[in-house]
Amino acid sequence: IAVYSAIDEADFLAIDGEFSGISDGPNVSALTNGMDTPEERYAKLKKHSMDFLLFQFGLCTFKYDTEASKYIIKCFNFYIFPKPFNRASPDIKFICQSSSIDFLASQGFDFNKVFRHGIPYLNQEEEGRVREQAEERRNQQANGAATPSYISPSSKGPAHVPEEHKDFISRVIEKVDGLFTNSEKTYPTFFGLHVETIETEKKERYIQISKVDDDERKRREQQKLEKEQEELNDAVGFSRVIHAISKSGKLVVGHNMLLDVMHTIHQFYCPLPQDLQDFKEVSMCVFPRLLDTKLMSSTQPFKDLIPITSLAELERRLKLAPFKSPKVETAEGFPRYDTAQEQLHEAGYDAYITGLCFISMANYLGSFLTPPKAHISPRSKLMEPFFNKLFLMRIIDIPYLNMTGPDLRPKRDHVLYVTFPKEWKTSDLYQLFSAFGNIQVSWIDDTSAFVSLSQTDQVQIVLLQAER
Amino acid sequence: IAVYSAIDEADFLAIDGEFSGISDGPNVSALTNGMDTPEERYAKLKKHSMDFLLFQFGLCTFKYDTEASKYIIKCFNFYIFPKPFNRASPDIKFICQSSSIDFLASQGFDFNKVFRHGIPYLNQEEEGRVREQAEERRNQQANGAATPSYISPSSKGPAHVPEEHKDFISRVIEKVDGLFTNSEKTYPTFFGLHVETIETEKKERYIQISKVDDDERKRREQQKLEKEQEELNDAVGFSRVIHAISKSGKLVVGHNMLLDVMHTIHQFYCPLPQDLQDFKEVSMCVFPRLLDTKLMSSTQPFKDLIPITSLAELERRLKLAPFKSPKVETAEGFPRYDTAQEQLHEAGYDAYITGLCFISMANYLGSFLTPPKAHISPRSKLMEPFFNKLFLMRIIDIPYLNMTGPDLRPKRDHVLYVTFPKEWKTSDLYQLFSAFGNIQVSWIDDTSAFVSLSQTDQVQIVLLQAER
Repeated sequence: IAVYSAIDEADFLAIDGEFSGISDGPNVSALTNGMDTPEERYAKLKKHSMDFLLFQFGLCTFKYDTEASKYIIKCFNFYIFPKPFNRASPDIKFICQSSSIDFLASQGFDFNKVFRHGIPYLNQEEEGRVREQAEERRNQQANGAATPSYISPSSKGPAHVPEEHKDFISRVIEKVDGLFTNSEKTYPTFFGLHVETIETEKKERYIQISKVDDDERKRREQQKLEKEQEELNDAVGFSRVIHAISKSGKLVVGHNMLLDVMHTIHQFYCPLPQDLQDFKEVSMCVFPRLLDTKLMSSTQPFKDLIPITSLAELERRLKLAPFKSPKVETAEGFPRYDTAQEQLHEAGYDAYITGLCFISMANYLGSFLTPPKAHISPRSKLMEPFFNKLFLMRIIDIPYLNMTGPDLRPKRDHVLYVTFPKEWKTSDLYQLFSAFGNIQVSWIDDTSAFVSLSQTDQVQIVLLQAER
Repeated sequence: IAVYSAIDEADFLAIDGEFSGISDGPNVSALTNGMDTPEERYAKLKKHSMDFLLFQFGLCTFKYDTEASKYIIKCFNFYIFPKPFNRASPDIKFICQSSSIDFLASQGFDFNKVFRHGIPYLNQEEEGRVREQAEERRNQQANGAATPSYISPSSKGPAHVPEEHKDFISRVIEKVDGLFTNSEKTYPTFFGLHVETIETEKKERYIQISKVDDDERKRREQQKLEKEQEELNDAVGFSRVIHAISKSGKLVVGHNMLLDVMHTIHQFYCPLPQDLQDFKEVSMCVFPRLLDTKLMSSTQPFKDLIPITSLAELERRLKLAPFKSPKVETAEGFPRYDTAQEQLHEAGYDAYITGLCFISMANYLGSFLTPPKAHISPRSKLMEPFFNKLFLMRIIDIPYLNMTGPDLRPKRDHVLYVTFPKEWKTSDLYQLFSAFGNIQVSWIDDTSAFVSLSQTDQVQIVLLQAER
């Protein structure tokens, strides 16, 4: 389908996810404490964010047209829902956070598209299990055994029929017997019975028994097999798009994308590993080249030019000098987004402007070359400092998670752990430490916070005062 | 509004709820084990069902028109969503179960109506807290103090302004100063500044500062107070409908209504008590008179006439002799349901046919009177055996939860706890116990079950055999 060829031909991809919530435990400010270590942050996000559903996935593919000197863009907006594949498949439970849902509702999010028409998915283990089960069923059918989910192989005696159903069962037996008797008269050739479980749109299930001759029976069984294969592929569903992105090995750009990466792996590959190092390795297998525009825009030479790095503000800032809006064109037949009419928080739109921001920033780097270059390829050496570093929200002294190596370990011996009555506000802490110049406060909960002093040697003085 | 007068004038009410899921733990067959005690069942439902959201509430009011000998019906279908009232209000998290959501989707459920337009609610504690906060704010404003949520009363020094915002702040100060300077020239009368936080539809918040004279300021403050009161009532929202039902003291009819009652109390009154006895007491305070049509239809004289008591089957059965379809009419301006076009699993429709079923069964009891009566009032003595007994799903020997007294304590000394390899099916258990006549199997999990023998003395024999 269109999405696979779009990925194939692209120079880079931009993604964005929308979730049914952010934190099922602490509020966001406690979830993202300014003094978290990367390990702590990962552990908290894994614990408190992964039971939400990634239910909208935006993908925009960017292909550079050298002749026209512009990017051709294809945007996709996928709605995703873990519709149970069959009775044996996992019945996923996910959490919704009212504030997140209400926020998306206020942006015009269409929940019916998720819950009625969302694309299903299976992670790798589920896919393996479902394929195995199908294989087993086929083998058993080939060997003439019954479907194991309906009749136990260990069942020897006749099935037990509860009193209240005996009437119904004997009427059915009569009818099926009738089929045989009737047929002997009217059908001259050998025939058999075809038994099939049918489910109506309203989820009512019944068993259909029909008379068929041998050829017809084989034809129906072949049909059933093909249908099963197709259903299986449909069940793997959206995971196949992620596999295609992964296999392409292309640069994947996102804005503040740590949660997007975590959710994508958790939902479409495997449960997240306990250990941060293992998570980095899995991530690099799935997405060998990542770039986070929030990290890029808060790194030099952009940091001094871009005061606010939220996606909306970044996009507005990059329309002004010294930056240039990139020349782009939406491929025919694809949704045409207009940055003048902001459609923020639709995943496809967010992915779209994330891609635009990346191009503007990349091209700005070209202005430092001699001679200056107007177009910088996502494969340029100039991009390398920004690869595989994911922005860490609100951590004061560790700007990013380094996906391909050890993380920064800043000294934190000027940081104090302070407890106080729950009535205290930030201003009380400023008051208390007013003798020590500028401080930074990272709230932990109502009664404790980390306070970073501007100089290490001040810590001694504070501790001495506290002892007195 | 319409709903309050409908409740006021009704002879009885029928309700039904739709939830975002059923069980966040064990599957339904383990959740509803045939050998549960009422205490165990309550504890399991409380633990595994209450984190789902009751997001559609159907209410039908039935008023008997003696002259026309028919019921006049008003049906309401409420969509419910815990939209956060303000930044200080609780940010509810609820679970969605894919199979339940998928099932409702297949019945045409409109999720946008829930998440975009759902009516909010507060439970009693939340309502109390919100009203208290509003009261406090008013008192402080009356005393001339600032709103506590914005400026800490304990803050004495000037607020700390981060470096990157200093520019912005000083520009704002200039503008506000400008307002004063300007006004002195043009406004001859005394004036003040009105400060208000405004939120746009897109959830962007800003502070609006405007010049007003003294009268205008007072007018605006009065307006703000009224708006606050109104917003507060809106926030209590759907809970007020439940309070009205409760205060009416009228008969409330439901079908298999234990979960409906539990969810209603949990969501709109208070967290469910630990203890079953306390739950019964709270329930009887909220709904002093309940009737469960599933329990009624599986009790004599109905039990023998009604083989299947699911709502859809019950409704079909009660259209046939010896039962009579009740004469009903939908009040003008209310949704007209047609039982020929089943709209099952829309809460309003389910409440509607639950009410119809109740009327049919009640009137059938009238046929035993001498002389027979065609219409039996919901207040009739004949109804009393069915009051305040809630159907217990799939419990073999305890048909109902007795809301106004101790529960039945059937002897269970013919019940064995059996463990076995996980490959075993029910048929293997029938096989094993084939020497003991009819048995009933209640699965606990993959490797254990309760087996009920038909006679107590057989237990001894089984145990003796097991020892050998």
